[in-house]
Amino acid sequence: MSFSSRLRNVQRSNASLLCIGLDTDIRKVPKSLLSQADPVTAFNEAIIDATKDLVCAYKLNLAFYESLGERSWVTIRKTLAHVPAGIITIGDAKRGDIGNTSEMYAKALFNSHSFSACTVHPYMGKDSVIPFAGDPDRGVFVLALTSNAGARDFQYLKVRGKPLYAHVIARVKKWNTADNFGLVVGATRPQQLRETRALVPHMPLLIPGIGAQGGDLRSAVRYGCDAAGEMAVINASRSIIYASGGVDFAEAARRAAFALREEINSYRARFF
Amino acid sequence: MSFSSRLRNVQRSNASLLCIGLDTDIRKVPKSLLSQADPVTAFNEAIIDATKDLVCAYKLNLAFYESLGERSWVTIRKTLAHVPAGIITIGDAKRGDIGNTSEMYAKALFNSHSFSACTVHPYMGKDSVIPFAGDPDRGVFVLALTSNAGARDFQYLKVRGKPLYAHVIARVKKWNTADNFGLVVGATRPQQLRETRALVPHMPLLIPGIGAQGGDLRSAVRYGCDAAGEMAVINASRSIIYASGGVDFAEAARRAAFALREEINSYRARFF
Repeated sequence: MSFSSRLRNVQRSNASLLCIGLDTDIRKVPKSLLSQADPVTAFNEAIIDATKDLVCAYKLNLAFYESLGERSWVTIRKTLAHVPAGIITIGDAKRGDIGNTSEMYAKALFNSHSFSACTVHPYMGKDSVIPFAGDPDRGVFVLALTSNAGARDFQYLKVRGKPLYAHVIARVKKWNTADNFGLVVGATRPQQLRETRALVPHMPLLIPGIGAQGGDLRSAVRYGCDAAGEMAVINASRSIIYASGGVDFAEAARRAAFALREEINSYRARFF
Repeated sequence: MSFSSRLRNVQRSNASLLCIGLDTDIRKVPKSLLSQADPVTAFNEAIIDATKDLVCAYKLNLAFYESLGERSWVTIRKTLAHVPAGIITIGDAKRGDIGNTSEMYAKALFNSHSFSACTVHPYMGKDSVIPFAGDPDRGVFVLALTSNAGARDFQYLKVRGKPLYAHVIARVKKWNTADNFGLVVGATRPQQLRETRALVPHMPLLIPGIGAQGGDLRSAVRYGCDAAGEMAVINASRSIIYASGGVDFAEAARRAAFALREEINSYRARFF
């Protein structure tokens, strides 16, 4: 089954476009967990247990793990093992290198770890991206238009009348012969999200930037979804996983995730 | 001391622009080492012992290590600990993410590990790159024009009459207030290397792509160096570290590194 179909299935079975970003910072883990051998794993497992019926995906930004050193590998592995089958796991690694090297990164993400998708930088072009897409089952989200201020530096530069990110989108569309590519478009760019969806009517869009980064949820749903009100993967991290810093962190995360899923679904009901 | 000065010092003390890429593939390590507890570390240490007076830098492409799983952290740490003080170590990680996340990657590369420089993707712009440049002592090589075929997809796209990579170079030049930025420009692009050097007369240029990738060494030296015949960091990996697959691999690596340093120095003598 293609990555795209896998995503659609779980979005339907959990009635959710919500992706929880497990960007777990050891400094923000509740004190009650710090006596455990691996507090980050314990935290992630508790969040997953509390939210697994409310999400289509979990996304792990690898920077948060790599900053922990070698134990991060075990933490990632245990976290992924705790995610129920069917739910998408995204290794937000933003890799990209020459062909034989990207193959090594793909191996690390998909074999050493078992992510069902990853994120990649487009700058080095086709042969840096394709090695991540060898298995139709695994997804590749290419950075198109990011949610940060620095997106202005290069992504909007005009090439033959169109911004650079539109050229990235056009290439990714060509590369997507196995229905396993997606794009990253920040929720802080509603108008561009709308234009992107018009260019790729069926492709999964990973949409970070709501919550702490200020992106607008209503627009993310309205413009990020396909015609069926699906295929947008709306990521929230800090607003959910740190909804409470106390012993009730998991229950608080569930409440926040539930509320966000419902808000997303209310916009889906309105617009689709 | 700024990163740029550190690089110049070691290029003078070892009379070398050569950077050896320790892109060690466990499948290519000589059989004689496979009985060791950590064959990759043993291989790297032997290569370093055999070449440390012939190089200005060692570059570790992190993909080769990550594909090994968690033991890669120890391998990287031991390898870096084996490099004599003064020689530059480059974590070729090609990272780049939103600000608070790039900070985590910088911490992983410069604190968890102790690389003296790293490589980053420019696509996400200023706030994704600046967190790597907080310490003037540590270098940040931004991808400008890469050596692979896919460089054609985006890096050459014309923006206001100039290719995208020239816009990247212009921005990096502005960001370089502490003399610790550099650029990656492939040896497979001699004319563009020449144009780049004209734009940044003093900046370190990391030049991959000679040897296996077919780049021209003479042009890399002639066009990559500053006016003093320095500040080009010419990387070679497979042609040196796998010069022999037998028990004499370290001696063979030394011979290959010596020959390459001498060839580089002969071009330096001719052109500067």
